[in-house]
Formats: sequence, structure tokens, C-alpha cells
Amino acid sequence: MKQRLRGKAVIAQGGGPTAVINQSLVGAVLQARKYPWIENIYGALHGVSGIVKEDFLDLTQATTHNLERVARTPSSAMLSTRDKPDAEYCGKIFDVLKAHGVRYFFYCGGNDSADACRIVNENARKVGYELRVIHIPKTIDNDLRVTDHCPGFGSAGKFVAGAFAGANLDNRSLPGVYIGVVMGRNAGFLTAASILGRKFADDGPHLIYVPEVPFSEKKFLDDVEKTFKKHGRCVIAVSEGVCDKKGTPIIATLSKTEERDAHGNVQLSGTGALGDALGSLIKKKLKIKRVRSDTFGYLQRSYLGTVSDVDAQEAREVGEKAVQFSVWADVDGSVAIRRTGDYSVEYFLTPLDTVARHTKHMPKEFIDVKNSTVTQAFKNYARPLVGRMPDYERISAPVVAKVLKKG
Amino acid sequence: MKQRLRGKAVIAQGGGPTAVINQSLVGAVLQARKYPWIENIYGALHGVSGIVKEDFLDLTQATTHNLERVARTPSSAMLSTRDKPDAEYCGKIFDVLKAHGVRYFFYCGGNDSADACRIVNENARKVGYELRVIHIPKTIDNDLRVTDHCPGFGSAGKFVAGAFAGANLDNRSLPGVYIGVVMGRNAGFLTAASILGRKFADDGPHLIYVPEVPFSEKKFLDDVEKTFKKHGRCVIAVSEGVCDKKGTPIIATLSKTEERDAHGNVQLSGTGALGDALGSLIKKKLKIKRVRSDTFGYLQRSYLGTVSDVDAQEAREVGEKAVQFSVWADVDGSVAIRRTGDYSVEYFLTPLDTVARHTKHMPKEFIDVKNSTVTQAFKNYARPLVGRMPDYERISAPVVAKVLKKG
Repeated sequence: MKQRLRGKAVIAQGGGPTAVINQSLVGAVLQARKYPWIENIYGALHGVSGIVKEDFLDLTQATTHNLERVARTPSSAMLSTRDKPDAEYCGKIFDVLKAHGVRYFFYCGGNDSADACRIVNENARKVGYELRVIHIPKTIDNDLRVTDHCPGFGSAGKFVAGAFAGANLDNRSLPGVYIGVVMGRNAGFLTAASILGRKFADDGPHLIYVPEVPFSEKKFLDDVEKTFKKHGRCVIAVSEGVCDKKGTPIIATLSKTEERDAHGNVQLSGTGALGDALGSLIKKKLKIKRVRSDTFGYLQRSYLGTVSDVDAQEAREVGEKAVQFSVWADVDGSVAIRRTGDYSVEYFLTPLDTVARHTKHMPKEFIDVKNSTVTQAFKNYARPLVGRMPDYERISAPVVAKVLKKG
Repeated sequence: MKQRLRGKAVIAQGGGPTAVINQSLVGAVLQARKYPWIENIYGALHGVSGIVKEDFLDLTQATTHNLERVARTPSSAMLSTRDKPDAEYCGKIFDVLKAHGVRYFFYCGGNDSADACRIVNENARKVGYELRVIHIPKTIDNDLRVTDHCPGFGSAGKFVAGAFAGANLDNRSLPGVYIGVVMGRNAGFLTAASILGRKFADDGPHLIYVPEVPFSEKKFLDDVEKTFKKHGRCVIAVSEGVCDKKGTPIIATLSKTEERDAHGNVQLSGTGALGDALGSLIKKKLKIKRVRSDTFGYLQRSYLGTVSDVDAQEAREVGEKAVQFSVWADVDGSVAIRRTGDYSVEYFLTPLDTVARHTKHMPKEFIDVKNSTVTQAFKNYARPLVGRMPDYERISAPVVAKVLKKG
């Protein structure tokens, strides 16, 4: 038997949490504990920042019972970070990993996390230290490249679809215009998932605006007016990241919000500003009285009680696969999902630089620009990921003839 | 056998929808269909406004299958209205009911709906027309008088608790201040339900602000500062209806929102203004950088996928009981719930004027004013209504000794 790479493993979670990110954590931990040459599996607290600070928990000594319960808990159990490591930071990460005799490093996150993996990996290679670095994908935005889709998206999509299904019923019973603002800076997948809450032909969301399509105030108002005329009501799904044709976020042009995040981007989440601004616009220009907006905010990624089964299973398996690839394939990379049937998948490893830094947008065939909605192709793509939605029904009964107002 | 009052029945739904209001509708319809002397049961579209317009569906001819599926659907299936009938309006309602030979009228709604029942009832009595009028309680605000609690509250409370449980996990993984704004103009029950999502001693919501306690900007900032110092983070639940000691809504003093609803009240829902204003205040005064706010909005009452079992069962039973009371007790009134054990209830009929117009606030013993939270007494009250929450777990594993930073 070939000599196995003996040493410790470290796992960490970075970026925004998802409802199933702990499935990946637990999948990797339990898998790693099966290989005797992986001496310990440490969990870093608060992602890469915990590595630099040597803040580790020894997950080798967590009970399986504890881990299995953590797996069903939303939001990063090892806690997260917004740190985006540069070369110097990655140097420090590597120093700590080396000092602890770590030979396996698993980082669960988005494209920034994949990039951190890539740089740490380069550091190790430079000094001839054998380190296996595997990126485990997660993001509710579903914007990682190469992979067919990302663990975390399905559950967030299920929340969004359930939110719009309910908002549509509410809006039907008390008509008006309803705007739901959905997370997504560059990619509209999550906003598009709102369509999966629709059942009857006249159900909302009637209009869907994604960052992939330049937002035009005129078209928006025309769309709303047309829909309102047709249905007497209008339910709208809009990505927080919609921009005008110059690429300026609408939240910045319509409202006064100017807060910027650690990376210098306009703050989009954690504020109701976009919804309120679009609502005011409709009231002012279209003279529609009952206009309401909700910004789904953090509930989309962390609400306790909504998980897609397929998403949970796949999140578990990408964690397990990460460890298997690191052990049996002796290579670095990012775990990716390939769709092989309707519905079936297989997992493969893609080089870190194919996933790092850049993100993916919705393909053109998913978007119906003219009608401000998404296509059947998108529904076919997303339905199995979101899984079975709770059903709802309308009253089916004959109309009673009028007695007083016979005309 | 005593002669039964022969005629038709009408049922309608008014005010804001709930997740279980259709259980009450279907409970009443199926019960009414059991009595041969109730010739038909009509459903009025859009509440009382549908009665005036004679917009009825004959629910006698809906299938049980259809009705049972509707029962599990959130939001008023017969559609709703914000109309608050005055004497003239109630006169028209009575005229239509009489013209159609209606002898039983069931109206599912809040205190305004109970008031409408009361006036219609008076009209009938005045002209000696025997009409049985029963109000079926519903409201997510849980602010109806006499009854121990209101159908609709438990499910909305479960959503709020699940939202805060998730937001707390999210806030723990990426620390900062999180503000969740919860529906409730005068009563804080729903905001208080946020406490039921808490498991560990340091979990949020750490602070809860309800309309029953005058909101002080100074105390709020002190509370947040103290909590942030202690936990390195802070999760806050606040009712949209919080007011200063003069009774002015904070949303009006802190932000520019001035929209008023049909009854002349400041518009509180369907805007993120309060959360944004409180967030700005914290950033400005406490210099805390990561402050996020979410306004749960309409999801609280209509999200598809979160229902409390106890709430659904009780909503069903108040519908059935409404019909039984109208038939066997020969009286008018509002169906109310009396808590008889831990946990058991019984139903009784209370006079319409004991429920109409006025609302109920949280009792003093439910509120811990000093610590800006709610008490164990509230938890004991609300826990059985909200029911079992999804569980969550933290990692339990030993800390690893540092190698590089031994000091």
C-alpha cells in the first residue's frame, strides 16, 4: 500500500453563512475521522482569521451525536469571517498550518475563499511543504464558476419561493403592489427562485428584476402599470444588486444609502432602502395607493426551519468528497457538482484558479428580458435544487346569482 | 324536537390574513354543511365588501378535498378587506343578508370585524329579523380581549421565533448588531415571541422593545452598548409600533415616514424605515460598524411553510365552534378560548361588545422593563401556542493549545 500523507487536518468556514453549510463541515469531519493517517481534524474559529490566531477546536473529540445535530443547524457553526486574505495574510495562514503539522486544509466558502485556498496552496508549494488544499463550495448566490450549482442555494431558494408564495396569497387577498427585495449583488439566481413559489397562471411574482439586466426606471414603471391593469395587483421580485446601464446600483441612485463594505462595495443588505425607494417611485408616478415592500434580508440564508432536502444532502456530500479527494486523489482543487440526469449529480475536483476570484452570472436563456421574468429553462434548472414546496389551494366553488343587483 | 332556524349561512374573512385563517373558514363550512336546516353556506369575497356587492361563492358546492387543501393554505382564501363598516355600511350588509334569506353570519377577523358583527346584529334585532351573528377570532397581534389568545398568533410567533433563532446564529458567526422589526402596532405579543427562538444563555434576542413600554432613545443606546460590551454582538427585536412617552411612533420621530392608512394611523408596515433609522442611530452614537436591520414584514403572517400545529388545530376548532354555538346555543357572540391546563383549552361564546373596538395589551408580568426583555411568565404563556421549534446545536469540542503564540 502506498504511503499516506500523515498529519493533521484543518477545516474552516468563510463568508456569509447558509442553511446547510454545517452539513459540509460535518461531512468533512466525519469523513476525515475515518482515516487513521489524519491524526486530528481541527476546526478554525471565524474562518481564516482563526487560523492566524491559532483559534482551533479539536473536532476529533466532538461526539458524532453533537456533530449530527450541528449539521442540521443553519449558519456557520465554526463561525465566519469577512477577511479576504492577501499574500501576506496567506503567508501567516501557511505558517500556522505548518507549525501544527497540518497537511490537509479544507475551506468552505465562496469565490473569495477559493482564492484564499489558491494562495495558501502556492505558499506551500514554494517551500516544498506538501499540503492538500480543498475548497468546499457554498453560497446562496449560486455564483461559483464551473460547478452546476452551489450548496446553500437550494435552501435559500426554497425560503425565497415560500416567501413569495405567501406574499402572493397575501397580496391577492388585500390587493396592491408588493415588492420583495432579494439578496444577490451580481447574480440573479436567488431572486429568480421566487418563480418557484408560483402555482396558478395569475400568481405572482409577476415581475422579476435581476442584476444581469440593466434596470430601467421607465420599463419598470411600464411593467408595473401593465400588470396592475391586468391583475388589479402586482407582486415584484427584485435583486438588491440591480444596476442601471452604467453599472451604478439603483439603491445608490434612488436612495441616499452610501455605506460601503470592507471591500469598498456599496452596502446592499441589511437595509430596506431599495424596496422603500422603488415603492415611493410607484406611488408617485403611478398613483397606486397600496404599495408595500419587504426586504427579506438575513432570513434568506439563516431562517431556522426551511431547508431543501437535496441541498442538505449535496452539502453533506461535497464535505465528504473534499476529504476523499484530498486523500485518494492526492490533489488540490475545488469540489464541483456536475448534473448527470433529472435529477442526479456527480462530484469532481476542479483546479482552484477556475473558481477563485471571478463569479458566474445567470445564462441568457434563463432570463426573459422583454417580460421582466425568468424562463422555463431556469425553472427546469432550479426546481430540483429547491425541492418540493408546500402546496396551496384556491377555493373552487360556483358563483351565487345576485338577488338585489340583477343588472 | 325544537324547530331549527332555517336559512342560509354566510361566512367572510376580514383584516390582515394569518397562516391558519382558512382552517377557521373550512371548520365553519364543513360544520355548517352537517345541518340540513342550513340550506347553503355562502362565502363572501373580500369580506364585508363582498356582501354589499353580493359577491358570493356557494361553498356548499365546494368539494371536501378542495376545502381541506384550502385549510392548509395561508392567507384569506375568500380574500379580505380593510373596510371598517359604519352604521350605514352595516345597514347595507343586513339588507343583502335578508334578501338572500341568510340567517347565520360568521365573520372571521379582529376587533374591527367583531364590531361589524355587533352593528349588523343590532340592525337585525331592530327589525325583528332573526339573524345569528358569530365572530370568529383571528389576529397575529394576539390583541383581542376576553380570549386567552388568538388563532393566527401561534404560527406568526413561530415564524418570528425561527427568524430570530436564525438571525442569532448568523449574528454569532459574523458579529455585529442585528435589529429585527416585528409587526405590532399596540401589542407586543408577536415581538415578544422572538424570545422563543433562544436556546443558549448568550443567544439573542438580547433586547426586546414592545409598544407597551415607552421607548427611550437613551435607554436603547445604553442597552445596546452594554450588550455589545458583554457579548461582542447584539440581537434586537423591536415592535414596529414602539412609541415615545408622548405616544408618538418612533418611526415618525426618527425617520421621514408619514404615510397614513385608511384609518388615519401612521403606516408602520411595508417599509424598512424604523429598522434603518435605529441602525443609523447605533452607528452614529455608538460607533459600531456592522449594524444590520431586517423588517420581517408580510412574511410574518403569510410565509408558506411555517405553521404551529396547536394554532392550526385551534383555528379549525373556533370555526367549528362558531357554527355549533349558532345552532345549538341560539345566541350571538364571539368565540373565545379559555386555557384550562398545561396545555388544554375550552371554547366559549363571549358577547360581541366585549371584543369589539378595543384591544388588549401585554400584561405587566410579561415584560421586564429594566432589562428590555420579556419574562418567564410570557414564555410559559406563549410556548404551547408556538409549539415545537426546530432545534439547533453548537459545536462541543476542546480548544487546541497554541503552538506559535504560547503567551
